[in-house]
Amino acid sequence: MTNPENESKTVNIDIRKDLFGANENAAALNAEIFKKHGIVAVDIMGSVGTGKTQLIESLCEHLRGKYRILMFAGDLATTIDADRVASHGVDTIQINTGTACHLDARMIRVALQKVNLADYQLVFIENVGNLICPAGYSLGVDKKVVVVSVTEGPYMVRKHPLTIKHADMIIINKIDLVDALEFDVDALEADIREVDAKMPVFRVSSKTGEGIDKFVEALNL
Amino acid sequence: MTNPENESKTVNIDIRKDLFGANENAAALNAEIFKKHGIVAVDIMGSVGTGKTQLIESLCEHLRGKYRILMFAGDLATTIDADRVASHGVDTIQINTGTACHLDARMIRVALQKVNLADYQLVFIENVGNLICPAGYSLGVDKKVVVVSVTEGPYMVRKHPLTIKHADMIIINKIDLVDALEFDVDALEADIREVDAKMPVFRVSSKTGEGIDKFVEALNL
Repeated sequence: MTNPENESKTVNIDIRKDLFGANENAAALNAEIFKKHGIVAVDIMGSVGTGKTQLIESLCEHLRGKYRILMFAGDLATTIDADRVASHGVDTIQINTGTACHLDARMIRVALQKVNLADYQLVFIENVGNLICPAGYSLGVDKKVVVVSVTEGPYMVRKHPLTIKHADMIIINKIDLVDALEFDVDALEADIREVDAKMPVFRVSSKTGEGIDKFVEALNL
Repeated sequence: MTNPENESKTVNIDIRKDLFGANENAAALNAEIFKKHGIVAVDIMGSVGTGKTQLIESLCEHLRGKYRILMFAGDLATTIDADRVASHGVDTIQINTGTACHLDARMIRVALQKVNLADYQLVFIENVGNLICPAGYSLGVDKKVVVVSVTEGPYMVRKHPLTIKHADMIIINKIDLVDALEFDVDALEADIREVDAKMPVFRVSSKTGEGIDKFVEALNL
């Protein structure tokens, strides 16, 4: 906004806006590529330790033999997560971000150029373990899934309304630990409904497999 | 680095470097202000749900009547954490960052201008719940404490070596849950030693108060 009394005062360059705009364009291109190859792509976001990798392992076991799956593993520096998923016989691509706290659409684009997309029907993207930053960067996927965990304490949804709003589906993971942690899952789900009354919410234990079937059904593969 | 064969090829503007440089200057100023007023300042970082607020509550109970304490609560949008600490009779300042995933030195500077620093001897700064981004931004404190939790799974240290390296002290929190989660604390501590063999590590339960006394001793107040 210009100031009529002193137009020369300040020029604000909104670097963030430009960065986000470029990312949205790259995301739209990724979406076209996925669509062209008939691939369903799922971005799985959540804090460190919420069980994103174990969720993907559980999904891969559940869908084994039904779909040809590719997994992208976003991580600062290690290949721990990709190695775990690869042990289930699933092809994986490691994307190490160095110090970057999220994946962006161009990283996915580069990764997509390294594979023969005709070989796959389903792509799981495990984002960098961080509940805040990944939500700002679209990757061009069909479904954005946010994984929260009963180990994260009672306030994590109320503290991250934008991340929740940005999701297409929410998984409340590690429900096998509800009793040990004396955790109130109903209250957490009510917090989610407060942000978005229609948000699909799934109570899952990636460890025991409980609830995975209903989540897979909702993915609409 | 210039390319002698084609010097006009690319100009890289490292925005991050400029931003970090400005932050370091602001952090140095904060450090001077704290020193001038004889205040010990502690930056408490860690992912969401690692128990940073409960740790500060436990510290405030432990130090009640011995030190005049001020708490800065960094959070995207809510005042939940500041309210919890305030209930212990401690003065608090809420710093809402909106979408910013970390506190920076200038935010602290602004907050410092709103209080009479002669009233305090100890400042606890609870950073935004995020294990990656806060580590890149010095605030000008005496001690940078990273809180990890046994609820975060076994890989969180190996996945965040830079955050660990950046810390002055590490707290392994929620050790009261070790048995319920079948968690190997020794292995986690070994991962920390792998990054920094001399890092002071404290096993704490902010809930029961276990280990708080040793941590307070190490703060050297």
